[in-house]
Amino acid sequence: MTTDDGTVAGLGEFGLIRTVTESRRQPDSTLLGPGDDAAILSAPDRRVVATTDMLVQGVHFRLDWSTPEQVGRKAVAVNLADVAAMGAVPTTVLVALGCPGDTPASLVTELVDGMWAEANRAGVGVSGGDLVRAEELVVSVTALGDLGGRPPVTRSGARPGDIVAVHGRLGWAAAGLAVLSRGFRSPVNVVNAQRVPEPDYTAGPAAAGAGATSMIDISDGLLADLGHVAEASGVGIDVRTDQVGVPRRLTEVGTALGADPLRWVLTGGEDHALAATFPPFAELPDGWRRIGAVTVPDSGLTVDGEPYHEESGWEHWR
Amino acid sequence: MTTDDGTVAGLGEFGLIRTVTESRRQPDSTLLGPGDDAAILSAPDRRVVATTDMLVQGVHFRLDWSTPEQVGRKAVAVNLADVAAMGAVPTTVLVALGCPGDTPASLVTELVDGMWAEANRAGVGVSGGDLVRAEELVVSVTALGDLGGRPPVTRSGARPGDIVAVHGRLGWAAAGLAVLSRGFRSPVNVVNAQRVPEPDYTAGPAAAGAGATSMIDISDGLLADLGHVAEASGVGIDVRTDQVGVPRRLTEVGTALGADPLRWVLTGGEDHALAATFPPFAELPDGWRRIGAVTVPDSGLTVDGEPYHEESGWEHWR
Repeated sequence: MTTDDGTVAGLGEFGLIRTVTESRRQPDSTLLGPGDDAAILSAPDRRVVATTDMLVQGVHFRLDWSTPEQVGRKAVAVNLADVAAMGAVPTTVLVALGCPGDTPASLVTELVDGMWAEANRAGVGVSGGDLVRAEELVVSVTALGDLGGRPPVTRSGARPGDIVAVHGRLGWAAAGLAVLSRGFRSPVNVVNAQRVPEPDYTAGPAAAGAGATSMIDISDGLLADLGHVAEASGVGIDVRTDQVGVPRRLTEVGTALGADPLRWVLTGGEDHALAATFPPFAELPDGWRRIGAVTVPDSGLTVDGEPYHEESGWEHWR
Repeated sequence: MTTDDGTVAGLGEFGLIRTVTESRRQPDSTLLGPGDDAAILSAPDRRVVATTDMLVQGVHFRLDWSTPEQVGRKAVAVNLADVAAMGAVPTTVLVALGCPGDTPASLVTELVDGMWAEANRAGVGVSGGDLVRAEELVVSVTALGDLGGRPPVTRSGARPGDIVAVHGRLGWAAAGLAVLSRGFRSPVNVVNAQRVPEPDYTAGPAAAGAGATSMIDISDGLLADLGHVAEASGVGIDVRTDQVGVPRRLTEVGTALGADPLRWVLTGGEDHALAATFPPFAELPDGWRRIGAVTVPDSGLTVDGEPYHEESGWEHWR
């Protein structure tokens, strides 16, 4: 027997599942939603794009920095950004959630509210999931997408002479982390960038439609991720700092904290902007801006023509 | 900098990813495997079946009871069984893995070997994943499947008069748990049933082809899961113990431990057998055996015509 004391243990697994699934509206692409052994999603393209990312409390988020709703949004956003980075349109997300039995049930419902909010921002729903007992809060999300008849845009298609371009914010999440780490809670727009990335999920399919030759979700940092593209494509990439630019707000925060804002822009992950390469004379879609060029193989990744020596991204267990 | 001291922290995220992905052979249905932002899988049916289940150390497995290879196999099996239970053929699995930095890299590679072994048993591969730092070992798997033009077999299609049938072992995993919990390590075939379920993934599509009206993966226990079918279908279900039977080996173990083996058979989960209902005169496919009948609505779930009062299954946080 359980007693409803407001914890997930009190509510029980099935009660909790009911709470987080009832009165949610699925989009048409969800042919069968939660409540059976598996969900069924439409895959009109006959190919399905699939990605999974796990977020762990204390590693990827802190509940003293972010609300459960923000954590839920972030967990879904980082996965949907990966779908968009292939040039695909998201079709659904599935969620596996582990938490201790004394976790307030309200925390879980707020987390799930955040997941739904972000899924809805991409026009999709949460079509399935799992709720289990764990020592710490762990959120694992899988996102699926549809290519709509287009070839996928991988990391390996960049060619010498291509334009390098980005869509979305760079360095904001890293600046937000620096602010939070020092115990501050403002400026709010910088701090919120750390809490919840706000990728534009239409930017990936738009780039694919405009002929992008390669694309990547910037999660490890601009230079680290362009390094992945350069390696996979067998090319060099030169990033121009005058084209990348540093937003005035980040310069202000950098000055206040005695930190280099350009470093946030070049090496900060977690904004989940997209980077892509386009043919030399391509017209960049809305919101995409040029930040460099693809150079010849073996010239490596350079910034203004020179090797960049700062630590260039995030890697786990380091 | 990292030092290769044999831990995942020493090897680093990217080194570890390389270790667990290189020289793996993907099936034809994997159009793009690990190494990009997302995997791409073929979905010939234009619908994709998707499910996710998370396994947590100390809750779903114990490393003093199971090898990492067995844990990996189990994590994949529980998900593929859900795909089969919809009547679908598995197409791929994706894996998110969290572990502490001092985890031996060999543990992770053995775990991944087990995942691949089980995926291969179903004719699929591990097409994508994520490796992150966590306080405890957490394995989250997502499995996808293809319906091959058939309608999905849900939990809600059982009709009064239908045959209730199962495919696979019942009670073995529960008996194995009882053995392990008392500090014993044999009989090996009973203990191994707890460590690794061995579902026959072809049994689900075969049942779908034979006209199954409802189907479910038995993970909570036979009675609990048939209860889910009865509720979703708005019918009653009567299970006949003379038809279910108790394997001699479980009777022996029950006698040795002073436990009721029928209770393991009726309420034990984790064997991941399939239960399904078929029209009254259907010919059951190979390996399916009749264990009862669908009765009229509101008669509930009964065993030999009587309500069953034992605790009837597993629920988290209870």
